[in-house]
Amino acid sequence: MITKKQLVKIRRRTLEYFKKVGIILTPDEKEHIEVADFGLGDIKHIGLELLIYVNTERCCAKELVLFPGQTCPEHRHPSVDSEPGKEETFRCRWGEVYLYVPGEKTENYKARLLMDRKRYYTVWHEIILEKGKQYTLEPDTLHWFQAGSKGAVVSEFSSYSRDEFDIFTDPKIKRETKISD
Amino acid sequence: MITKKQLVKIRRRTLEYFKKVGIILTPDEKEHIEVADFGLGDIKHIGLELLIYVNTERCCAKELVLFPGQTCPEHRHPSVDSEPGKEETFRCRWGEVYLYVPGEKTENYKARLLMDRKRYYTVWHEIILEKGKQYTLEPDTLHWFQAGSKGAVVSEFSSYSRDEFDIFTDPKIKRETKISD
Repeated sequence: MITKKQLVKIRRRTLEYFKKVGIILTPDEKEHIEVADFGLGDIKHIGLELLIYVNTERCCAKELVLFPGQTCPEHRHPSVDSEPGKEETFRCRWGEVYLYVPGEKTENYKARLLMDRKRYYTVWHEIILEKGKQYTLEPDTLHWFQAGSKGAVVSEFSSYSRDEFDIFTDPKIKRETKISD
Repeated sequence: MITKKQLVKIRRRTLEYFKKVGIILTPDEKEHIEVADFGLGDIKHIGLELLIYVNTERCCAKELVLFPGQTCPEHRHPSVDSEPGKEETFRCRWGEVYLYVPGEKTENYKARLLMDRKRYYTVWHEIILEKGKQYTLEPDTLHWFQAGSKGAVVSEFSSYSRDEFDIFTDPKIKRETKISD
C-alpha cells in the first residue's frame, strides 16, 4: 500500500531518471507511470517503477526504473491458456542492474538483501547488466534483479505481459499495488 | 548496392544519432548496424539504418535511424505461415517522423518525394510523430515514413520480424542490401 502523496513523489523521482536518460514521455504517460510496491510496503527496498509503451497479445515494451538498491523480487512468468510464459529481454540503458537467474551460484554476488526476506530468493547466478548490455530470459524462468548504487533505467521487450499471473517466491507478495488516500 | 566504404561511413553517421539520444551500444552491436538501401542505390533519399536488439518468434525490438528527409518506402507485412502479418509500434525518440497509412489523404502533407518514384506511394493519411509520440500499425497495413529536416531516431516494438517477406509497392525494391567492395 502506498499513499497518493507517495505515488506523486515516486512518479516525480522516476521522471528524473527518464530525463537523465533522454527518454521523453507525453503528459498522459507521465500520469500513468506505474509504481509497484509488491504489497510489502517497503518500496525503498522492494519496488519497481514502470511505464508500459505497448502491451498486446503479440508484443510488449516497457521502461523500468529502479532506484538505488531497489529490488524487483524473485518471480517467474508461467504458461497461461496453453501459451508459454512471457519471454523477456532486459536492456540496461543507464546505471547498473544485477540480474539473478538459475545456474551456479555466483560467489561474492553484488546484491544486498534484507535478512528477513532473503529466504525468498532462491536463484543466485548473477548477470551484471551495465548500460548497453542486455539479457533474454526464457519463459517461466525464476529471476529477480536489483539496481546498483546509482539506480537504473532498463528497457524491457517481451511477449504479452500478464503481470497478474506472475508467481512470486515470497508468499506475502501481491503484484497489485493498493493506493490509499 | 552500397560499397563497404559507404557502409562504414553510414554506420558512423548512424552512431552519431544514437549518441545524441543517449542510446548506448556494445562494440559488437556497432558493427552490426544494418543499412538498407532497398536496392535503389539512392540511400540519401530512400534508406533506413537499424539495429536489432531482439527478434524471436515472440518479440522484436529495433532502433531505427533516418537521416534528414530519408524515406522508408511504402510496404506492408503480410501474413506468413498462417500467422498474421507483423504488428508494429513506432515510437519517435528524437527528431520528427511523418508516417503515412491508409485513410483520408492529408492536405498539405509534410513529406517530399522525388517525382520519378511518387507513383509507388499510395497511402497518404499523415501521422506526425514528434519525440515521445508513438503509433501502432495493424498487421498487413500499407505504410511508409520519412524523417523531418533533422532526421529521426525511432524505436520499433513488434511481433516477429521477417523482413524478407515484406511487400513493397515499388516493384524495383529489393529488401536485401548488397554490399560491394
